[in-house]
Amino acid sequence: MGWMSDETGLEKCAANYVPLSPLSGLKRAAKIFPDRLALVDGEIRRTYREYHARCSQLASGLVELGVKPGDVVAALLPNTPAACEAHFGVPACGAVLNAINIRLDVATVTYIFEHGEAKVVLVDSAFLGLAEAVCAAMSTPAPKLIEVAAPEAGHPASGRHQTYEELLAQGDPAFEWIMPQDEWESIALNYTSGTTGQPKGVVYHHRGAYLNAMGQVLSWRMTLHPVYLTIVPLFHCNGWCHTWMMPMVGGTIVCCRDITAPAIFDAIANEGVTHFGGAPIVLNMLVNAPEDQRRGFDHVVEVFTAGAPPAPATLAKIEPMGFHITQVYGLTEVYGPATECLWDDTRWSALEGHDRAAIKARQGVAMPFMDDITVLNDKMQQITMDGAADGEIMIRGNAVMKGYLKNPKATKEAFEGGYFHSGDIAIQHPDSYVQITDRAKDIIVSGGENISSVEVEGVLMHHPAVNLAAVVAKPDEKWGEIPCAFVELLDGQAAEEKEVISFAREQLAGFKTPKKVVFGELPKTSTGKIQKFALRERAKSL
Amino acid sequence: MGWMSDETGLEKCAANYVPLSPLSGLKRAAKIFPDRLALVDGEIRRTYREYHARCSQLASGLVELGVKPGDVVAALLPNTPAACEAHFGVPACGAVLNAINIRLDVATVTYIFEHGEAKVVLVDSAFLGLAEAVCAAMSTPAPKLIEVAAPEAGHPASGRHQTYEELLAQGDPAFEWIMPQDEWESIALNYTSGTTGQPKGVVYHHRGAYLNAMGQVLSWRMTLHPVYLTIVPLFHCNGWCHTWMMPMVGGTIVCCRDITAPAIFDAIANEGVTHFGGAPIVLNMLVNAPEDQRRGFDHVVEVFTAGAPPAPATLAKIEPMGFHITQVYGLTEVYGPATECLWDDTRWSALEGHDRAAIKARQGVAMPFMDDITVLNDKMQQITMDGAADGEIMIRGNAVMKGYLKNPKATKEAFEGGYFHSGDIAIQHPDSYVQITDRAKDIIVSGGENISSVEVEGVLMHHPAVNLAAVVAKPDEKWGEIPCAFVELLDGQAAEEKEVISFAREQLAGFKTPKKVVFGELPKTSTGKIQKFALRERAKSL
Repeated sequence: MGWMSDETGLEKCAANYVPLSPLSGLKRAAKIFPDRLALVDGEIRRTYREYHARCSQLASGLVELGVKPGDVVAALLPNTPAACEAHFGVPACGAVLNAINIRLDVATVTYIFEHGEAKVVLVDSAFLGLAEAVCAAMSTPAPKLIEVAAPEAGHPASGRHQTYEELLAQGDPAFEWIMPQDEWESIALNYTSGTTGQPKGVVYHHRGAYLNAMGQVLSWRMTLHPVYLTIVPLFHCNGWCHTWMMPMVGGTIVCCRDITAPAIFDAIANEGVTHFGGAPIVLNMLVNAPEDQRRGFDHVVEVFTAGAPPAPATLAKIEPMGFHITQVYGLTEVYGPATECLWDDTRWSALEGHDRAAIKARQGVAMPFMDDITVLNDKMQQITMDGAADGEIMIRGNAVMKGYLKNPKATKEAFEGGYFHSGDIAIQHPDSYVQITDRAKDIIVSGGENISSVEVEGVLMHHPAVNLAAVVAKPDEKWGEIPCAFVELLDGQAAEEKEVISFAREQLAGFKTPKKVVFGELPKTSTGKIQKFALRERAKSL
Repeated sequence: MGWMSDETGLEKCAANYVPLSPLSGLKRAAKIFPDRLALVDGEIRRTYREYHARCSQLASGLVELGVKPGDVVAALLPNTPAACEAHFGVPACGAVLNAINIRLDVATVTYIFEHGEAKVVLVDSAFLGLAEAVCAAMSTPAPKLIEVAAPEAGHPASGRHQTYEELLAQGDPAFEWIMPQDEWESIALNYTSGTTGQPKGVVYHHRGAYLNAMGQVLSWRMTLHPVYLTIVPLFHCNGWCHTWMMPMVGGTIVCCRDITAPAIFDAIANEGVTHFGGAPIVLNMLVNAPEDQRRGFDHVVEVFTAGAPPAPATLAKIEPMGFHITQVYGLTEVYGPATECLWDDTRWSALEGHDRAAIKARQGVAMPFMDDITVLNDKMQQITMDGAADGEIMIRGNAVMKGYLKNPKATKEAFEGGYFHSGDIAIQHPDSYVQITDRAKDIIVSGGENISSVEVEGVLMHHPAVNLAAVVAKPDEKWGEIPCAFVELLDGQAAEEKEVISFAREQLAGFKTPKKVVFGELPKTSTGKIQKFALRERAKSL
């Protein structure tokens, strides 16, 4: 190892070692560009000086409420300024931010409040009913609710709780932040969506949040002073760490409470948005927007999309509109994005249409802050990179979670063999680019043959009338399982089950071809991910 | 502190903790863009696959020579491919790279070889005479010399030593790199110019090299695939960490052995250079280049300059030529650049001429990877930021050295009070931007090289006719500053300027030798201290 023969006096000290934390970025921004625009939300326009002061007031106010370092402070907030401020103000008093999905049901949020032991919850007035119901249902002491009133969104303060602005008003804008003494200290707690059993509490540390945010700057072709639109919910892997990234690059966050095509186009045209992340459904929303909702712009908007590969038809339409699309891939356990489909113009600049989409459908390669992302077989051996052999995506690096809260058994299993086991099944192309063939649990096993639901969906997505397709297993007496397709059609389009099945059959083996096609809107999570578990339930009862 | 009430199972493990190291960048680059151009040197054009393989061969070859982790491998190299490869190949076998200034004299290099205990030295054929003289002069075992032949530069292999290419040829291109197990392990050893007495060995760790390289990407408005020209010598703070930065962003390094205006213009026009760093003398060289040496280009070249503020006249000429100039400031002790004069177009976009130069003359603010860079008075209190009060620049952060090798006393002094003491005197403007008023008084900066006046005075004092000597900077159009000596002779003694200069030249490197010697009584304070400020004034008017 690289220890010299005499290292006397070369130990860490206050001058040369400072624990990594994304908090440092906002401290620096407030000092070196205090008058730059940090945050926009409708009429609200806050500079870095103001943003920093409000985060300090929040931290100070929380301390006044009795919050101690290591305590959990939860949030039930849409993408509002308060949600952004919580990302700095909560850890600035040493606490751990637990941003909770606002679309969850009472039972699940009750589990999260109890399991996470939140002392305080910042709750938007629109979700106060949920929070109050949860508090009433809890078998452990309920947290104190601080109400973030949203009168401009039709949700004025209820009058039943201390408000966020009252809390800030009594806070000290010069409060000295409680910085981590060890970069392994916890900064955030994020519950997985819990496809099997109860959700698991994923714990992030300051080091990972810093390195992920800093490293994504490189991946996202970002230079100083970007303008970032919050489409990814801040309760989803802390908005992929982007709120923590912005002060590092002196960027402006534009809040977006309701994700609609006009809101996005307006933000691009009026605020000069340069970057946003979002599920493919957001891309579809943009390409399908009627002319009168669209706005023109001259620059290129860099978009990270995740959750599913962008469909060829969507790509073909959205890129000429001025959006540069990069697929990224990750999970709650890895702070959001971990891979990127890095576009290599030395190899692919001439590709168009389906060939271009075929490359962009890959999940790609490790982002700079990850040590290794690869695909291993069940003996933990590297698969052949031939685009055919498959295995499980394995992730190692500094933006992998600390583990699952109060669940050392699940943590140990997840980290077996020195990698985080993603649960996603993938191939690797000869250039090492990873491509997901299926979620382990989404694989359909029919007559002993594995069917990749992603492959079948990819074929259906090429049908001219199809907007979105999801394929799940339907129990079958003879075959065990058969593929069943749920299809959302484009506005004004129509299709017949038989015709869709024969369209699929032209490109798929018989056993892979859906035996049943159901038309209608697909159930989605708040982030636009299709809820396959709900479809599986429906398929069962068909 | 942010430790949750129950952190069972949330400890570091192989999946979620990987020591930070700039080596990771080249490993990743070789995997994800193996066919991209990594390095150019005249006819030589190497891809990342080749660059990685050669660095592996170097590491493997060094192991074969008996180099063990923690051993020092020195380099006496101009900015050649071998110098770049040494930045990865040496640490890839766990060793510590000691890049030595090729302009130093035999006595100083002898001290460095002995003090640093280099086991192997990579030496360019042009500097083989120096290395051999040093080995002959050493009182401790001499290192093994590996000769880097440079026939294309008129320096073919001597035939007296194993060559670099021979070493690589016997190395294994698939050698498994020895990665740090602790990011605090040492990666480089850089000797300061030695303002008082012998040079000090500054030790860098893997963590700092990684964070500095990653963070400068943000400061330098750099997106993927930049083209970087090596003007800053790689023996100056490891070329400001830029060689380590390039693989992180998939950039191309263009080597530049001899720094001339045509070489720079050709690299920009032929290779599309987008970034380089250099002393103001390099900027002067470009603006003063005759028309027939210039080449046209369409893009903007981002330039980091350090060592002295860029002169208003230079700025006025060079920016319209297509160069965007940012002053940075740092020292060997902080891995090179630590501050940047971050240009704030919301405040300064209208400034021109001297007003613009006045802003660009500031050393600026902390780069993203530094925690705090400020100016403190002698009681370690923050000075008033009024552009008038002065104090010493103090630096705290993750790119501050581990300390001085085998000199715990100097290390302790340098880190007194939890900051690295820069020795540079500065004011702070109301916006916190730092501006040096008195460059660590005695240092002379000539052509980007620091010259210690104390060292030159020490040599002159040995002249049999000299009673007292004081050496100060004399402004010089070409070099920025040159050393000018004021000498008081012993009673009854006489001396000639020419003879004193050649006396000094016998013991000093050319650039350190005084270009001018003035005889006469020296101005002194009442306590007998030489008034250097008065001599500086006189030197100006000579």
